[in-house]
Amino acid sequence: MSMRKLLPALYHSDREGRLSPETRVIAMSRGGLTDADFRGKVDAEVRDGSESRRVRDEVPAGDAAAWERFLARLHHVSVDVGREDKSGWDALSGMLSGFESRDRVFYLASPPRTFGPFCRELAEAGLVMPRSRVVLEKPLGHDLASAQAINDEVGAIFEERQIFRIDHYLGKETVQNLLVLRFANAFLEPVWNSLWIDHVQITAAETVGTPGRRGYYDHAGALRDMVQNHLLQLLTLTAMEPPARNDREAIRDEKVKVLQALRPIAGTEADRFTVRGQYVAAGDMPGYLDEPGSTPPTEASARVETFTAIRAEIKNWRWAGVPFYLRTGKRMPYRRSEIVVQFKDVPHSIFPGGAPNRLVLRLQPEEGIELHIMAKEPGAGEVTLKPVPMSLSFGKTFTTRVPEAYERLLSDVLAGNPTLFMRRDEVEAAWRWIDPILDAWKADPALPEAYPAGTTGPAGANELLGRSGRAWHEEEL
Amino acid sequence: MSMRKLLPALYHSDREGRLSPETRVIAMSRGGLTDADFRGKVDAEVRDGSESRRVRDEVPAGDAAAWERFLARLHHVSVDVGREDKSGWDALSGMLSGFESRDRVFYLASPPRTFGPFCRELAEAGLVMPRSRVVLEKPLGHDLASAQAINDEVGAIFEERQIFRIDHYLGKETVQNLLVLRFANAFLEPVWNSLWIDHVQITAAETVGTPGRRGYYDHAGALRDMVQNHLLQLLTLTAMEPPARNDREAIRDEKVKVLQALRPIAGTEADRFTVRGQYVAAGDMPGYLDEPGSTPPTEASARVETFTAIRAEIKNWRWAGVPFYLRTGKRMPYRRSEIVVQFKDVPHSIFPGGAPNRLVLRLQPEEGIELHIMAKEPGAGEVTLKPVPMSLSFGKTFTTRVPEAYERLLSDVLAGNPTLFMRRDEVEAAWRWIDPILDAWKADPALPEAYPAGTTGPAGANELLGRSGRAWHEEEL
Repeated sequence: MSMRKLLPALYHSDREGRLSPETRVIAMSRGGLTDADFRGKVDAEVRDGSESRRVRDEVPAGDAAAWERFLARLHHVSVDVGREDKSGWDALSGMLSGFESRDRVFYLASPPRTFGPFCRELAEAGLVMPRSRVVLEKPLGHDLASAQAINDEVGAIFEERQIFRIDHYLGKETVQNLLVLRFANAFLEPVWNSLWIDHVQITAAETVGTPGRRGYYDHAGALRDMVQNHLLQLLTLTAMEPPARNDREAIRDEKVKVLQALRPIAGTEADRFTVRGQYVAAGDMPGYLDEPGSTPPTEASARVETFTAIRAEIKNWRWAGVPFYLRTGKRMPYRRSEIVVQFKDVPHSIFPGGAPNRLVLRLQPEEGIELHIMAKEPGAGEVTLKPVPMSLSFGKTFTTRVPEAYERLLSDVLAGNPTLFMRRDEVEAAWRWIDPILDAWKADPALPEAYPAGTTGPAGANELLGRSGRAWHEEEL
Repeated sequence: MSMRKLLPALYHSDREGRLSPETRVIAMSRGGLTDADFRGKVDAEVRDGSESRRVRDEVPAGDAAAWERFLARLHHVSVDVGREDKSGWDALSGMLSGFESRDRVFYLASPPRTFGPFCRELAEAGLVMPRSRVVLEKPLGHDLASAQAINDEVGAIFEERQIFRIDHYLGKETVQNLLVLRFANAFLEPVWNSLWIDHVQITAAETVGTPGRRGYYDHAGALRDMVQNHLLQLLTLTAMEPPARNDREAIRDEKVKVLQALRPIAGTEADRFTVRGQYVAAGDMPGYLDEPGSTPPTEASARVETFTAIRAEIKNWRWAGVPFYLRTGKRMPYRRSEIVVQFKDVPHSIFPGGAPNRLVLRLQPEEGIELHIMAKEPGAGEVTLKPVPMSLSFGKTFTTRVPEAYERLLSDVLAGNPTLFMRRDEVEAAWRWIDPILDAWKADPALPEAYPAGTTGPAGANELLGRSGRAWHEEEL
């Protein structure tokens, strides 16, 4: 994560002048590396291993000076949380005392069980100050109780305003544009409700499987790994009421209200409103249980979902009767994250043909917004309707570079702006809705439905929509 | 007109297989030409003088066969309306009796005063049958009384269902797409009213002046020449209620209702709600009174408007309080016909900056639809709003050729479909609204406001909007 996302994001921020000259990046690990070791490792791994093609392309091509300047900001301290030996903390403390600035961001990319102990030792070393911040990577617990425990532990050391729970989906331009689209444009809000919208689809499809990660994934599954955070975040932003102000609390208050309005899915209802799937071998792709390089499959492996689809409902005035279909899976035929807002059909059609309008907000692979409208096919004969997209592609529309999600989020942390981070009550409200589904699945003796690797999921996912005459949006990109 | 528009349109229809093999095109004039003369004239003039670049480009480039086939359909008969000598009619009659088909379209591109006499002589020659149709070119009269007289005269010979009053603006793809956009898409209709729309601007700007045509134009002016027909047609299509069916009467019924709901502008109100302008010399462009090749200017010349802007109001539930600004002029800085629907601003803005949404339906120079929305400028700092167009350009979106307006309209005449033609009550309702403005202007001793050739009109046109804090949409294309 650090090498693939965080350090490239910091490099871009640095190169574009958003880091002050004093900024230092101090890596902490049990690794026993010197600064020079760590810089060498970053020089090798980030330049080659970065997901950001720009790092790979730019650095050798002439931005070597920027890269050298960035490398010079890097340090390494060896800290081993939970040990008697506190020499690592002393070293960190000594290093930090040399800086005038009191803006300290502690980014925890370690497993969640370490969050509490880390914060405690940090406080014991006297390193937590009013201007310190802590960033917590997901997963934040595996259910409500464990999330509350982590929040309690971290909350014992840091105030809520200092805690940044990161979800990189919220750093995507499209996601922020969703707020702008909804609340800086007058034409959408009047139709953004159950009168005019038929349903919403939120999809996060991955083509990858879980090679080498089954040990972790057996205890996660798609619901915890994707729905509890990313998909529910997208749902809240799509469904929230207009906030009174563009500020951290006003926006997050509205998001929490949506989560609290989700109709609970518990017990036997999970059969009707949720679908679980697990991919099986197809073509040259292995099934989940055969993924190479993993620990041997266990009973937990056989029961874990690599795909889930859920019909969610929001019980409030705006959304009564409008299903929000959530779907995520591994080994699907495409990599795509998108929100599809499907409008109702015209109340009375005077032209033959025609299809309902659709607003597509795409986060991946290419960020963009498309409004699918019906237009007349040119020609001198009868009126023939044709669906055509009116599109706004950020990459093509704007000459400014679209920043990577982590860049924006790290900038926000440095600026102390938590609007795009999850507040404690948000995370817990999400778990409060997820927990009964987890319980229902646990109580269900059936295994997840099999789906061949490379397909759009099990048959049940289509039935989930099909029984109300709807279908997943599977348009070719 | 015939050479520039009609014959090219017929050629395209022929080439694309929309004319039956028996179709003949018989030109009638006082010219005394033989068929061969006429074909030679068309061969020379249409190929070189056509506004349709496609005729010029295609014919020499390999579609010579299609062109020859088209030329072979052409005939000429010399007819002189209002003479004792009926030999021309006899010749026409003889020629028509050789055809089995009874589908006869008489296209009157002659001055409106000839419409009545022509139809009468046509009937006297026994050439009007149930399947005959007559197409009337504008101007259809110069006020309500003269329009009624023409309609009475033509109506004495043809039934209303046989009369096609042509307005080529209605043949534009964008205009027909306006109906599709409004009535085949669910997301627009809910905001298509005074709750969400601030005002509408309808502009038809020309860069040309009136060289050599002052004799005609002195008695026309922009109000008669453009507003009474084109601009009011665009207004009705923008403002009409959803028709119950896509048929000739249902759509035209709704259009007439809009014209009947226009708030009359009479007497001193014309000062507040209308602006007259006349261009004066600027740079190397002559003023209206100095245009070369014209008859010498008269008192009528000094008083005629080459530009007008009007603030219209529609007194019904949907549009109460929403101004419809109409504007047309010669010698403006650009050639552009467009409808701009300006939405109200968001009721409460949570982002700095921002501007109201705008839907632009452009007929010229390039047909297309643009929805101007606010998006977030990409970047990791504060949210910065930026207006961006989501666009649908017919030329770029569809691979099918966009037909010229006359092609579609002539096809509709041949198919007997008058939906896109003006019904008698529509034309007369338009004149009923225009007449009091003409009267008010006539009673006003003031001359039209001068505006320099090549500008967007007189100062009064800006004040018309400016006094309610609005402005004409002058975006660069």
